[in-house]
Amino acid sequence: MEEMTWPEVAEAAHANHPVVLALGSTEQHGPHLPLNTDVLIPVAIATEAGRQLDLVIAPPVRFGAMSRPLSGGGETFPGTLSLRASTLITTIQEILSGLARAGFRRIVLQNWHYENAAYIWEACDLTTASHPDLRMLILENPFPDFTAQDLAAVFPKGFPGWDVEHASIIETSLMYVIRPDLVRRHKIADDEAKRHPAWDVVPAPQDFVPKSGVLWHPSEASEVIGRKVLRMCTNHLVKAIRTELGA
Amino acid sequence: MEEMTWPEVAEAAHANHPVVLALGSTEQHGPHLPLNTDVLIPVAIATEAGRQLDLVIAPPVRFGAMSRPLSGGGETFPGTLSLRASTLITTIQEILSGLARAGFRRIVLQNWHYENAAYIWEACDLTTASHPDLRMLILENPFPDFTAQDLAAVFPKGFPGWDVEHASIIETSLMYVIRPDLVRRHKIADDEAKRHPAWDVVPAPQDFVPKSGVLWHPSEASEVIGRKVLRMCTNHLVKAIRTELGA
Amino acid sequence: MEEMTWPEVAEAAHANHPVVLALGSTEQHGPHLPLNTDVLIPVAIATEAGRQLDLVIAPPVRFGAMSRPLSGGGETFPGTLSLRASTLITTIQEILSGLARAGFRRIVLQNWHYENAAYIWEACDLTTASHPDLRMLILENPFPDFTAQDLAAVFPKGFPGWDVEHASIIETSLMYVIRPDLVRRHKIADDEAKRHPAWDVVPAPQDFVPKSGVLWHPSEASEVIGRKVLRMCTNHLVKAIRTELGA
Amino acid sequence: MEEMTWPEVAEAAHANHPVVLALGSTEQHGPHLPLNTDVLIPVAIATEAGRQLDLVIAPPVRFGAMSRPLSGGGETFPGTLSLRASTLITTIQEILSGLARAGFRRIVLQNWHYENAAYIWEACDLTTASHPDLRMLILENPFPDFTAQDLAAVFPKGFPGWDVEHASIIETSLMYVIRPDLVRRHKIADDEAKRHPAWDVVPAPQDFVPKSGVLWHPSEASEVIGRKVLRMCTNHLVKAIRTELGA
Amino acid sequence: MEEMTWPEVAEAAHANHPVVLALGSTEQHGPHLPLNTDVLIPVAIATEAGRQLDLVIAPPVRFGAMSRPLSGGGETFPGTLSLRASTLITTIQEILSGLARAGFRRIVLQNWHYENAAYIWEACDLTTASHPDLRMLILENPFPDFTAQDLAAVFPKGFPGWDVEHASIIETSLMYVIRPDLVRRHKIADDEAKRHPAWDVVPAPQDFVPKSGVLWHPSEASEVIGRKVLRMCTNHLVKAIRTELGA
Amino acid sequence: MEEMTWPEVAEAAHANHPVVLALGSTEQHGPHLPLNTDVLIPVAIATEAGRQLDLVIAPPVRFGAMSRPLSGGGETFPGTLSLRASTLITTIQEILSGLARAGFRRIVLQNWHYENAAYIWEACDLTTASHPDLRMLILENPFPDFTAQDLAAVFPKGFPGWDVEHASIIETSLMYVIRPDLVRRHKIADDEAKRHPAWDVVPAPQDFVPKSGVLWHPSEASEVIGRKVLRMCTNHLVKAIRTELGA
Repeated sequence: MEEMTWPEVAEAAHANHPVVLALGSTEQHGPHLPLNTDVLIPVAIATEAGRQLDLVIAPPVRFGAMSRPLSGGGETFPGTLSLRASTLITTIQEILSGLARAGFRRIVLQNWHYENAAYIWEACDLTTASHPDLRMLILENPFPDFTAQDLAAVFPKGFPGWDVEHASIIETSLMYVIRPDLVRRHKIADDEAKRHPAWDVVPAPQDFVPKSGVLWHPSEASEVIGRKVLRMCTNHLVKAIRTELGA
Repeated sequence: MEEMTWPEVAEAAHANHPVVLALGSTEQHGPHLPLNTDVLIPVAIATEAGRQLDLVIAPPVRFGAMSRPLSGGGETFPGTLSLRASTLITTIQEILSGLARAGFRRIVLQNWHYENAAYIWEACDLTTASHPDLRMLILENPFPDFTAQDLAAVFPKGFPGWDVEHASIIETSLMYVIRPDLVRRHKIADDEAKRHPAWDVVPAPQDFVPKSGVLWHPSEASEVIGRKVLRMCTNHLVKAIRTELGA
Repeated sequence: MEEMTWPEVAEAAHANHPVVLALGSTEQHGPHLPLNTDVLIPVAIATEAGRQLDLVIAPPVRFGAMSRPLSGGGETFPGTLSLRASTLITTIQEILSGLARAGFRRIVLQNWHYENAAYIWEACDLTTASHPDLRMLILENPFPDFTAQDLAAVFPKGFPGWDVEHASIIETSLMYVIRPDLVRRHKIADDEAKRHPAWDVVPAPQDFVPKSGVLWHPSEASEVIGRKVLRMCTNHLVKAIRTELGA
Repeated sequence: MEEMTWPEVAEAAHANHPVVLALGSTEQHGPHLPLNTDVLIPVAIATEAGRQLDLVIAPPVRFGAMSRPLSGGGETFPGTLSLRASTLITTIQEILSGLARAGFRRIVLQNWHYENAAYIWEACDLTTASHPDLRMLILENPFPDFTAQDLAAVFPKGFPGWDVEHASIIETSLMYVIRPDLVRRHKIADDEAKRHPAWDVVPAPQDFVPKSGVLWHPSEASEVIGRKVLRMCTNHLVKAIRTELGA
Repeated sequence: MEEMTWPEVAEAAHANHPVVLALGSTEQHGPHLPLNTDVLIPVAIATEAGRQLDLVIAPPVRFGAMSRPLSGGGETFPGTLSLRASTLITTIQEILSGLARAGFRRIVLQNWHYENAAYIWEACDLTTASHPDLRMLILENPFPDFTAQDLAAVFPKGFPGWDVEHASIIETSLMYVIRPDLVRRHKIADDEAKRHPAWDVVPAPQDFVPKSGVLWHPSEASEVIGRKVLRMCTNHLVKAIRTELGA
Repeated sequence: MEEMTWPEVAEAAHANHPVVLALGSTEQHGPHLPLNTDVLIPVAIATEAGRQLDLVIAPPVRFGAMSRPLSGGGETFPGTLSLRASTLITTIQEILSGLARAGFRRIVLQNWHYENAAYIWEACDLTTASHPDLRMLILENPFPDFTAQDLAAVFPKGFPGWDVEHASIIETSLMYVIRPDLVRRHKIADDEAKRHPAWDVVPAPQDFVPKSGVLWHPSEASEVIGRKVLRMCTNHLVKAIRTELGA
């Protein structure tokens, strides 16, 4: 949509196409992945879904919620640029209002940055008061349920838990498929925090954060895994849109 | 702490005792549990933990984040009284500042209302700028990892997923132990939403919300399960405090 | 209402019962009264009034406006936990909206914490724009006019002025009636600030604040006075509700 | 100060003169007094005090807090222009910061609009965090204690209570002295609300508000009373400044 | 309007007269002009226009947006008292709402403080949502286009650019006409910044700001120029009102 | 920088390279230019400047201030997605803080969307309080002064005024050079508003807005003009950086 003209947008809105707003971040992804990894991936998923459905892809939200040490390394890594919760909520609200003013009635919020999750619903709930005819589908978590077989295919050496999937197997695999030119292959190095407890501490103890910003094992990534996950997420998105928005 | 006098608080702060701030909600819990279920439970866990450690229990946060239809039934149930994200974040921040002004240096945020989760970290992170010597331990999720054996003990008829644990087996079991007088036993009735997808929709479709506000099967609750879960959560809290705050 | 279930709330709202929202604080009350004194008292008054009228008692607002040195000792006493004006106004607004959503149309705001006074009206006035059918009765000041005879009965050694009635004769007397177990009788000691001028100074000079946090003479308190004041405040509240809300 | 140049302000700040910030309103004052009555009076008091002490008079705050029906007639009278609480608090804060930046260290906040009262302290308290060397003297209430003799002199026909002193005896008398040209004498008419209870109701019942906006009896005003009250308020202000700011 | 009574305002609103809200500042204007120069001038223009049209002049906004070093000398000059952008926007919004409540439907926003410009439109745009029947005419820039002849008449020694017209030829000339008693003639001295680039730098380099706060040559000012500019601005305002508001 | 990794950013910050933050919009640009025109152009200028100086290009701000009818067509065109002033100011502030945290000390704010102008300085001024060692260079207006010769070269048929330079000669010419693939040449059509006065009106009269969203004559655009303007803006930026940041 960024590269569309306004009459093209008007036409798409008039045709009542769903519009997908990808929500990402500008956040460190280790020494081998670019800062905009969380933007490129959900846009790629939406683009793939656009081959099966008539969709408009809105300009993504590129600044996300504050990076938390346990899920994204945190704000101490140079290059991570984030918004406070209230700014992010308002930003999403104002974009939703703008899409509604444009005539769109069906909006999909496709998230890839874990820390954004709660704020998206809040923004949608606040928007619904002034735009009651808007129907908003939220994918806070972009993944479908993984069967044991899926897990084995994606994590052949064992599933480490979703929370350390940052700059690790899935994201690196997806980037092999989406923008392989941006993956610094010679910089790939596995890492992990000395401790990764079930709770959180503020300010974060140093041993919660791996030095490289990589939370697990990108060396296990592959293009094959990337294709599989991209397909799974795409199908999940398509299914959600078909089920809830009747597109 | 609500029932303490200020010199008693001063003494506890001077002794550097950790203070536990329970975060709950005022939210519908079906026809058999009271609105303050999410407040009574984390306070009870903190009280239990207080038998093993010297702890101060701060006045709990009784108004929580907006109830979401898929995890709490939503704001359409009479009696649910919630705060917008920005109000809740600021409230927590101002309480943390007050505790710091009182002299406390070790604070535990014990959450029981799912929707509060993200806002707690945001409030702590904002507070750390003006109170750098405060160490804040956050339990967004109050549960330890459940082994298969634990799951079998708590959910003998099968584990339905954490998200429908609202006014259901665990909460009802805990209330049998904590405040059995508040459980309306003759009103207990199992229920479930017609649909409970992996995504969310705003405004919520009617079939996302069970009429009774009960998201699963409180009839499977028992005092035995309640005792077991209370013990597990208490031990989890004690372990977290010992590990991170050295209490 | 905290201990009610949602169908019970729904029934009360459907019956158009007035709902009373007590507004207190978590604030030092000297070495002999608990921090939640300002919460227990207005709830007790509302409960007494509930014997004469069909009332619902909403979960009270337990964190109040910043304690001012001349009327509550100020924020330097450990245990005082307060909200900034804008947070408190928004909190009250959001609770009022929640009560309106529940179906209540008649709301009583019963205040006991002096510093809350102005913010209550502001919150109600802001709420009225989106809920024009709500009728809100505000008792900023919970006392009826005291006749000379009343003053003599309550302050047998002379009336010191309302502003020093903090942790002093009236509050201690009321607590003797409401929660005598929470009054630390052996800690009762009269006190007063060296200066208590008609103006205020920020930051507060040290001689504005009595060391104990007691602003006057709790030793003159008695259960008899407590009963008398509780009755007077209750009758005042009942009269206000009957006059304005026709209950 | 509005008519001073910046080097003149710099000199006054350098001499450490106290600066007086008058807080008024733009509010209906019946058919006989102008909208800026609440601005002219506190500026006149400060000007009188300036004859006894070296003072700088800051540009007054001319838009005050929302007019309440029981004390000012309310926002339904054309010409009343008010600010919401949060805007007023921030405005005062930013003016205080500006005065501090100019080099002033002793600031007097002289209020005349009842509804402003609570917000002034909040603004001062918020300012003190970033300007700890600022000493702020607040006169929420501009009057000294009135002896029975004073009351008899000012209210020869009986004291009606301070709350109805709006566009009534004192304000009209003061305007006879300060700006007699602005008093529309032929429009003076006594009035009063049908009801003036000890509580408040939102939205305000019609019988709380007198049609003319006059809350009591301006016909009893006189220049003699005006001079007396002006002198009393001036002396009160001078005394407060001398006591607290050592000027 | 400040000196009007409410029934006079009501009558003017009922007659549907346009109301002019002047937007100024409290800002240094060199050693020869008072801090309220930016308030006196737009009020004078509106007053002049009021001789040709039936206009009401609202109480002006006397605290403006933060003074920028390159256009007003900046906040380091003692006596400059300004509001942050968000406070100013809200202030204007609340005044506009008050004028709408009073019954006015045609509002003119006459600006004289350069830094206010963008915020005025934002406030009007925000107000239009709740007051769709309000028609707001904004003169961010109070000047008509100057012909070469006009420029020669006003700047006989050459036109230096609008941005340095602060406390300089035009403002001093206008003050000769409007309030000659406030011009300190013996203090007039030309000045200019060592550098005045086409960009800005924060924090401002010292050589961006002339020591006196005068950005150009007030010695070239004259009453003749003042009369000419006052007439031009007045005619421009009248023309705008006639064209857009049909007055 | 979006495509950089965090160690690459860390290195650039350590080398003290200036970082350029481009500020654009997502705004209609007629039927022939894409919505992101205001983003692509300042990024292209910064990229060009990066050939002469060591610069880092931060992720641009893609959602800008509300589009005003007279300078951008306004918010009624589908596809225009904008932020309210307060959201934009906070967004810029938080990005600046993030860049400071990363170690950058010299920041250039390169604006292309006219409506953003005032908000940039406000954000920088607010940031300077917590980051006093940051030096921020602001180019609100990206153009150098045009000589008569320049004007003749760029506007051979006459200079229409900068305010109508939206989707017109300069922007179209620049896009011919930067992203010719995004220019829909067959859709180019000159247009202009029926009226384009020196003042503004809210809500905007219909005749202020040309139907196509094109404010002037894109048919006069050419690649030659594009190259010339790109060179002029680049040199202007380089000169500003050299002068103020010593790069």
